[in-house]
Amino acid sequence: MLSPNMNYSALKESYLFYHIARKTGAYLAEHPEKRLYRMGIGDVSLPLPPAVISALHEAVEDQGRKDRFHGYMPECGAPFLREAIAAHYRKRGVRLSPEEVFVSSGASDELGDLQDLFAPESGALIIEPAYPAYVDACVMAGRKMLRLPSGPENHFLPLPTEGLEADLIYLCSPNNPTGAVFSREQLSRWVDFAASRGAVILFDAAYEAFIEEDLPHSIFEIPGAESCAIEICSLSKTAGFTGTRLGYTVIPKALARRGMNLNAMWVRNRTTKTNGVSYILQKGGAAVFTEEGQRQIRENIGIYKENARMLMAALDRIGLRYWGGRNAPYLWLACPEGMDSWAFFDRLLREIQVVGTPGEGFGACGEGFFRFSTFASPEDTREAAGRLVRLLGKK
Amino acid sequence: MLSPNMNYSALKESYLFYHIARKTGAYLAEHPEKRLYRMGIGDVSLPLPPAVISALHEAVEDQGRKDRFHGYMPECGAPFLREAIAAHYRKRGVRLSPEEVFVSSGASDELGDLQDLFAPESGALIIEPAYPAYVDACVMAGRKMLRLPSGPENHFLPLPTEGLEADLIYLCSPNNPTGAVFSREQLSRWVDFAASRGAVILFDAAYEAFIEEDLPHSIFEIPGAESCAIEICSLSKTAGFTGTRLGYTVIPKALARRGMNLNAMWVRNRTTKTNGVSYILQKGGAAVFTEEGQRQIRENIGIYKENARMLMAALDRIGLRYWGGRNAPYLWLACPEGMDSWAFFDRLLREIQVVGTPGEGFGACGEGFFRFSTFASPEDTREAAGRLVRLLGKK
Repeated sequence: MLSPNMNYSALKESYLFYHIARKTGAYLAEHPEKRLYRMGIGDVSLPLPPAVISALHEAVEDQGRKDRFHGYMPECGAPFLREAIAAHYRKRGVRLSPEEVFVSSGASDELGDLQDLFAPESGALIIEPAYPAYVDACVMAGRKMLRLPSGPENHFLPLPTEGLEADLIYLCSPNNPTGAVFSREQLSRWVDFAASRGAVILFDAAYEAFIEEDLPHSIFEIPGAESCAIEICSLSKTAGFTGTRLGYTVIPKALARRGMNLNAMWVRNRTTKTNGVSYILQKGGAAVFTEEGQRQIRENIGIYKENARMLMAALDRIGLRYWGGRNAPYLWLACPEGMDSWAFFDRLLREIQVVGTPGEGFGACGEGFFRFSTFASPEDTREAAGRLVRLLGKK
Repeated sequence: MLSPNMNYSALKESYLFYHIARKTGAYLAEHPEKRLYRMGIGDVSLPLPPAVISALHEAVEDQGRKDRFHGYMPECGAPFLREAIAAHYRKRGVRLSPEEVFVSSGASDELGDLQDLFAPESGALIIEPAYPAYVDACVMAGRKMLRLPSGPENHFLPLPTEGLEADLIYLCSPNNPTGAVFSREQLSRWVDFAASRGAVILFDAAYEAFIEEDLPHSIFEIPGAESCAIEICSLSKTAGFTGTRLGYTVIPKALARRGMNLNAMWVRNRTTKTNGVSYILQKGGAAVFTEEGQRQIRENIGIYKENARMLMAALDRIGLRYWGGRNAPYLWLACPEGMDSWAFFDRLLREIQVVGTPGEGFGACGEGFFRFSTFASPEDTREAAGRLVRLLGKK
């Protein structure tokens, strides 16, 4: 008799965003005349920039012409894109060879697939509040997890302490959901800790494009990271690729454990378990790294940052404490009057039709907090900000 | 200290197609004036059909317009595509609900990812000669493997025998590399065997579109398969998507083992470990299932079938024994004069610049055999067929 992966039976029943979708669906079924202001799921609202659209059209055209058609792509990524990404890193002082850059279908896909590189007995350290898929992917792998809670007392940026047990360390900076960003000194502490223990950091840099201040965009800006970190990046929020799909991952050639080179292992994984990422999408992705593409994505990010400012102004007027928003596309706030986060979710949904994300969904220490995404349209964000002030502002 | 997945250290050093690429690269470096006739890797040469191209352009256009833009897609596939695929199955008498169809980035990707559903202690049965990635994915999972050799004596279509041990059974029909296709009776034997043991069949149907005779395209044409099989399908060969990427997988709701429902497990896997397949690619894929799309892919498949006929005629003239070609895009032949398959590879490369695939790369029992793909251009195939006859034909 085949035995399924019984680790799945240890998964908590329902996934945060599924639960939100069910609640908003039920509300709309009862109130079909209402319109929602969705700032719950971190999905972008602006279309792809023109440079990407024209590269995609051109690539589609190639696929329709015999003399320009592309069959199987190299499994680890097209050289033109691996080189463009390595060049992008060079601009911020990080030297990578194109063979250290792997093209992916997106950060979520990659965070799931990367589990295969690590023995299940390697334990994971997850800073909470955390993106729920980190936890679920570790549960599926049967991996022991240590959850390191964070809170206002450490600005949601906990540091390693002596005796902390971890083989695989998830760091997300700028953080989802809290918007907190590690400084160079703080990241160095994590890099030194990982190096001293022989641990490996999975650095989720999906939101790096939103950093405004002088803070590290890449863990490879920290000396020593090349022998203890993997960086997972995404074009989803950077360039509006949530529904188009493309990302990239950096696995340095210097990264090895117990005699196994992790870059070489990933090459083997990709050549065995994939046939590469779509030519069309890789051409679209390459356009993001052109001068024109970079200018256009900065414009879009500027619009989302204006959303963040509208929401921050509203929270300031209400007098609610919040984190993030400046260097991240998320705002993380303390629920008013000690309300629990699902109760606050229900209140906003029912009274002002504003949808956010309850902090509890990101781990127990997220209880009492709430996340707003800044990716809605400016019109919706302005309306939501106004409704928040009218509902919660001092009378 | 992090422990990598040490199963990777048990992988054989080099991958078949990598080895072929190295040998052909070295030959071209020595003989830059030569042109190769590539029938080694099963990559298509015809561009995507016009119906797909126009759907892709339209989807790209959507992604550039605010009012038509698509963000995150449902993780298991867009309803429009899941429904189109379920309708396609209905035409051949297989009733599926759209929720039993999962959109994938392609069959290779899916065959790798599906490993996660099964406990590593579940053993795999692999009929050899076999697609090497089956074996490597099982090695990576630390799965015990039983290899069931096949040969001319059973037309490369072995059947289960009493006492055969297997929890996970890989079947590929039409077969890569042999081109052999299971009949309904033969497949029923495998379905009954799997059902009686509580095993699960992974049915790789990547080449079903090449079947001409009255043979099963889907394992779900066999009664009882819905409770013991998963079917993995691809648009790569069917519609020229090798470099564009799209596939689909059927996991029936009736498929459960040890109290775990495999359809529900896969929903959980996809929602945790992916953010869905590109909207653009799914729109392109949906065009394949329209009347126009089906007519256009039939035309392309007809061209590859004409290639097969040219190669079969050449092998007939030479007097070499072969299998496949009629219902499959591969021809599988016995090397002349008992030559070993890498020696035959070298001879064809050096003497007539024709590249095929040595049978040994598909498992020990493939030694002495050789694979030709029928996906090259008609011009290259005609030239290669002529060169084969001149080199090997009776003087």
